Amino acid sequence: MQKTDPIIDRTRLWDDIIALGAVTDPARPYTRRSFSPLFLQGRDWLRQRFEEAGLATRIDAAGNLIGRRAGADPTAGTIVIGSHSDSVPSGGRFDGMAGVIAGLAIARDLRDHRIVLNHSLEIIDFLAEEPSEYGISCVGSRGMTGMLSPANLALRNKQDETLESALVRMGGDPALLAARTDIAAAFELHIEQGPVLEARGADIGIVTSIVGITRIEITFEGTAGHAGTTPMKLRRDPLIAAAALIGWIRATAEGLAARGQGHFVATTGIVEVLPNASNVIAKTARIVVDARSEDRTLMEEFCWALDVESAAAAVAANVDRLVFDRLSDSMPAACDGSLRRLIGDSAAALGFSSMEMASGAGHDMAFVSLVAPAAMVFIPCKGGRSHTPEEWASPEALAAGTEVMLDAVLRFDAGR
Amino acid sequence: MQKTDPIIDRTRLWDDIIALGAVTDPARPYTRRSFSPLFLQGRDWLRQRFEEAGLATRIDAAGNLIGRRAGADPTAGTIVIGSHSDSVPSGGRFDGMAGVIAGLAIARDLRDHRIVLNHSLEIIDFLAEEPSEYGISCVGSRGMTGMLSPANLALRNKQDETLESALVRMGGDPALLAARTDIAAAFELHIEQGPVLEARGADIGIVTSIVGITRIEITFEGTAGHAGTTPMKLRRDPLIAAAALIGWIRATAEGLAARGQGHFVATTGIVEVLPNASNVIAKTARIVVDARSEDRTLMEEFCWALDVESAAAAVAANVDRLVFDRLSDSMPAACDGSLRRLIGDSAAALGFSSMEMASGAGHDMAFVSLVAPAAMVFIPCKGGRSHTPEEWASPEALAAGTEVMLDAVLRFDAGR
Repeated sequence: MQKTDPIIDRTRLWDDIIALGAVTDPARPYTRRSFSPLFLQGRDWLRQRFEEAGLATRIDAAGNLIGRRAGADPTAGTIVIGSHSDSVPSGGRFDGMAGVIAGLAIARDLRDHRIVLNHSLEIIDFLAEEPSEYGISCVGSRGMTGMLSPANLALRNKQDETLESALVRMGGDPALLAARTDIAAAFELHIEQGPVLEARGADIGIVTSIVGITRIEITFEGTAGHAGTTPMKLRRDPLIAAAALIGWIRATAEGLAARGQGHFVATTGIVEVLPNASNVIAKTARIVVDARSEDRTLMEEFCWALDVESAAAAVAANVDRLVFDRLSDSMPAACDGSLRRLIGDSAAALGFSSMEMASGAGHDMAFVSLVAPAAMVFIPCKGGRSHTPEEWASPEALAAGTEVMLDAVLRFDAGR
Repeated sequence: MQKTDPIIDRTRLWDDIIALGAVTDPARPYTRRSFSPLFLQGRDWLRQRFEEAGLATRIDAAGNLIGRRAGADPTAGTIVIGSHSDSVPSGGRFDGMAGVIAGLAIARDLRDHRIVLNHSLEIIDFLAEEPSEYGISCVGSRGMTGMLSPANLALRNKQDETLESALVRMGGDPALLAARTDIAAAFELHIEQGPVLEARGADIGIVTSIVGITRIEITFEGTAGHAGTTPMKLRRDPLIAAAALIGWIRATAEGLAARGQGHFVATTGIVEVLPNASNVIAKTARIVVDARSEDRTLMEEFCWALDVESAAAAVAANVDRLVFDRLSDSMPAACDGSLRRLIGDSAAALGFSSMEMASGAGHDMAFVSLVAPAAMVFIPCKGGRSHTPEEWASPEALAAGTEVMLDAVLRFDAGR
């Protein structure tokens, strides 16, 4: 098979992004929360576009919207292209949506150009990739890969609805949840959500792996006291331990990131001091640490050292370490090596620059990789910004990523 | 004149403390906020007790409740004994009240024992020593010393009442505010509000000076970013600068406190991180530093170094120091050397142990010291705790302080 010329209709691709983005809570663009009436409105729009593109639509047991196009060889399995159409509150128009719309564009343009794949093709809008009101993310991709546990399904939102009921409300069927075994390859296009591609001037990011994320809560407790009358030597100030630890976390993460064992970051994003009054020595200081690594060994090393260091910080400040708790923990997910090479070949063939990089954010493909070879195509976003109304990818960047993904799908389908 | 035998009626002294403490918001003992109906109810009780003790009562221009007993020598000036009857919300029964009740006990027992002083004697309940709903503290002592400015009087509470109107409501007369010139000596008994006397096993603290208090707000601004996708090297995390500075503040305060130039403390009591989410690198980190010193030179040195160090912390973390602002600033107030010696002599004569110490908290005597020799007698409080319902001083400690203060008043009156 020869080099594929781009066949994507760039104008329609971009117009679809803008059209889906317009389905938003008008009071706080761009907001289309999973499980909401607006979300269903967005899905209605998607379902119509899927059907116009010749796709047979359905909602699977996990509440995913799927548009399917049968392949020439019924035994060849399914190529999946998917991402998600839900957003965070006051988010952007690209995180998730770009990957679904790119899949739609590919299906439509394959149909328009009468290209029939050997594999069946499915474009998937995964349900609730962003943290949902039931407390978990990636609901649809967990469900499709057998990772939605009974405990998950029993989670409740503030209105006391279970996730199981909500799944039914979305058209799913919790009784039929099972891991799929027919997927031959899965692709997801996504904005990078970071500054690296823009900083390096690269068109395409080829994701090596999706980081595992570990969140640890640490609370130090001392003795509240009068800020004027308690001599320095008699203080048990828990903020002193927290501040020392915040500096250590930063320095240690820099060291681990520089090791050459892949992407590692650690962030102290939450600090809560009580009573938080200028004239009172704090009684408690609580921090939450978010650490992400593509290498589980690095993560284990970090968590072990954090345990030791936080205990030592408490001793040094003469306070107690009241809490050291892993709030959540997920394993890193490797992207498939063969698919990564295909994407690199496609980028080169189409004249786009590319680079390998880890994904520091979680994605549906982390779950899909548990049941099939999975890969991700990153495109640059302005200033690396995401989860904000200013989130932006250029029409050219979106088209480049879509064309590379189409080319990779064609190469995979042809067995090259 | 000979050694004075104690004449204080310890039972009545203690019963008065309990009785005044019972005038509280029942929903949150012990609360008797300045300017409130409960506060006026407490003052009615005090006024009756003052009159039963033979004191002539009045409200002065600054809204202070004063009970006066004329001296033998009309030209000798006035000896003031005062503190305050207002409390913080959910405070204790001793902070302020102990000093007013001690003064009442002294006046009553002088009367009962038919002791006539050369000086006139005034027992004063200073108005609103605690931070009031108008945003300032020490309203009555400021007013009595010419320190209540037109800007102060124009302050408004949440109901849009000016402090000037509130003063009138309390029986004051803002038009007649002036600094008093007749005070020969002023004494205040107060609980220490700190752990030092208890830790040293001392009965009496003789206050050397009341610290000056400087509050500084520092805000660092960086770039909010995704905690997973922003590499460590590309971060502009303002919390890193704040954490480093918090550690520096502690270490520097310890060093200044150890200098031997008197009491110095510095506290970071407020930390505010935005957006304060586990998966977002902070955009801003704000801290408020409360520094207190009896030596203005130490304070100037600290503030200068804090300015330099916070600027350097911003540079080191590659963030901006958006705010460096002195929110408030007050000078230290020295207690009178002669009165301190009198108090020491009285304690020794009565068989109580005493030690000199600074007051790390503000007091009405800081203002009174601007117009007259002023001194403070500290008594130990349990665990150093204050501004809490658990605040506690023993009947013995209260009696000891009252007897020492009476003895010092008698010594001063006799010109010894």
